[in-house]
Amino acid sequence: MSLVVVGSVAYDGVETPHGKVDRMLGGACTYISLAASYFTRVSIVAVVGDDFEQQDVDLLTERGIDLGGLERVPGKTFFWAGVYSPDMNDRATLRTDLNVFADFQPKLPAGYRSQPYLLLGNIQPELQRAVRAQMNGLRLVGGDTMNYWIADHRPELLKTIAEWDFLLINDSEARMLSGEYNLRRAAETILGMGPHTLVIKRGEYGAILFRHDGHFMVPGYLLQQVFDPTGAGDCFAGGFIGYLAGQGVNPRDGQIPHNDLRRAVIYGSVMGSFCCEKFGVDRFRTLTRGEVDARYLEFKDCTDF
Amino acid sequence: MSLVVVGSVAYDGVETPHGKVDRMLGGACTYISLAASYFTRVSIVAVVGDDFEQQDVDLLTERGIDLGGLERVPGKTFFWAGVYSPDMNDRATLRTDLNVFADFQPKLPAGYRSQPYLLLGNIQPELQRAVRAQMNGLRLVGGDTMNYWIADHRPELLKTIAEWDFLLINDSEARMLSGEYNLRRAAETILGMGPHTLVIKRGEYGAILFRHDGHFMVPGYLLQQVFDPTGAGDCFAGGFIGYLAGQGVNPRDGQIPHNDLRRAVIYGSVMGSFCCEKFGVDRFRTLTRGEVDARYLEFKDCTDF
Repeated sequence: MSLVVVGSVAYDGVETPHGKVDRMLGGACTYISLAASYFTRVSIVAVVGDDFEQQDVDLLTERGIDLGGLERVPGKTFFWAGVYSPDMNDRATLRTDLNVFADFQPKLPAGYRSQPYLLLGNIQPELQRAVRAQMNGLRLVGGDTMNYWIADHRPELLKTIAEWDFLLINDSEARMLSGEYNLRRAAETILGMGPHTLVIKRGEYGAILFRHDGHFMVPGYLLQQVFDPTGAGDCFAGGFIGYLAGQGVNPRDGQIPHNDLRRAVIYGSVMGSFCCEKFGVDRFRTLTRGEVDARYLEFKDCTDF
Repeated sequence: MSLVVVGSVAYDGVETPHGKVDRMLGGACTYISLAASYFTRVSIVAVVGDDFEQQDVDLLTERGIDLGGLERVPGKTFFWAGVYSPDMNDRATLRTDLNVFADFQPKLPAGYRSQPYLLLGNIQPELQRAVRAQMNGLRLVGGDTMNYWIADHRPELLKTIAEWDFLLINDSEARMLSGEYNLRRAAETILGMGPHTLVIKRGEYGAILFRHDGHFMVPGYLLQQVFDPTGAGDCFAGGFIGYLAGQGVNPRDGQIPHNDLRRAVIYGSVMGSFCCEKFGVDRFRTLTRGEVDARYLEFKDCTDF
């Protein structure tokens, strides 16, 4: 079972209270793919410039990620730089150079089109829809978005998510999209927009899965030290869809088993928590599936009563 | 098994986005006792003025609360007024009239002194210690404090909590008391101050129980509507100690069973969540033990995986 991931592959400059890195591999598609690669085969669709380094290609390849859909074009790779507040719950963007990403038109290799799972990282809603239209035989499709699309491209966004099975956003985005402050009511409104499954990410406070028949809550993993939260939300998404893809769930045949959805939320939380332990994608250079499963059990032990 | 609760009985003026009440029954001792009364017999030690109304006496009495230690003195009852921010995560104090509470010297009726459980609500650390010294045969003692005592009465506070089994505080107080931002490290430091059990309350985000051998996390109950969060933290404390008292736990005989501690955290969360559903103590006028247990099961259903 293979998962197709579409989104940005980028270089990031990040400053947190624990240090500063001027340029390192980043981008939603990168984080999602790395996290998902612990559970399923992943194929990516993205664009980079001619400055994209071999060591970064190698990292993705070593995780078994199929780069057949990674386009290389003349110019520079998308660059983002930001600085975190002392408590790391806020960040300010210092620089966004779209570079080659400005003209990104996702093109799916023929072999990708019949894959059963699709995760659409945060890009223009029109592009997300165009990718979905190129796929046939999808079992499960969903993705992420952000405040900019919610505020300024609402009609396009609504048309796009109406075709999704699940939406993964954070609490402030859920409030903005629904116009409701209370998360329970926000979720009801969003579930009326198309997706049958909504995951609201709450950063260090965990996540909530909503469906028409109820919800499931998980607290955030309690890290001893958060080095860099960049990419944690994308790693959550990667763990979530990666686990479901690895299980081969098929809602076209009926409901996704509740247990699979709940475990997917835990694996999402696990991958998000590992992401914060080092700068950028560094934790994934050494992380093993054994460590992932051990932390899943730790979640169980810390929440069971 | 009886629980002795010491703290403020007050009148509150509260404004939230959902309305305004100029004067209603409040105070930490009131909320703690009401919540605990669903699990165990409760006796209170507090002081009120001659303006304290019969209907408020009746409410406490109807919940089976022993008012033998409720002193009435000439003057006015403690009055506090505050207004909540639109998201209700912050509040500003508009008025604090200590009135008869300024000279509160807790006197325990003889019959209270041999009770096995003691919860010390947020009052001067010296007074908390004086109350503890009047008790003999305690099985479990703990309490609450606040930023004022942490900042300006630190030596007295440390002497006081060194004699406690458990401390219940919120996340910002835990950071202030320990000097550590990270909650896991904050908890380690605080557990070195005496208490073997620490509960950090995180408002709408739930709570974490810490002990030397591990921690237990619960997300906050997802309310459809929060009317008034006043007293929710105290109701958490009441549910927590009330459940443990009702179970008759006795750490002097060895460890408190882990399952009891975890369930106590859930019952604390349950009582805190009910508190927010109406203004002041109003929810406790109709709340039944059956509703309490149903919400406990709802917690289980929403967090189990």
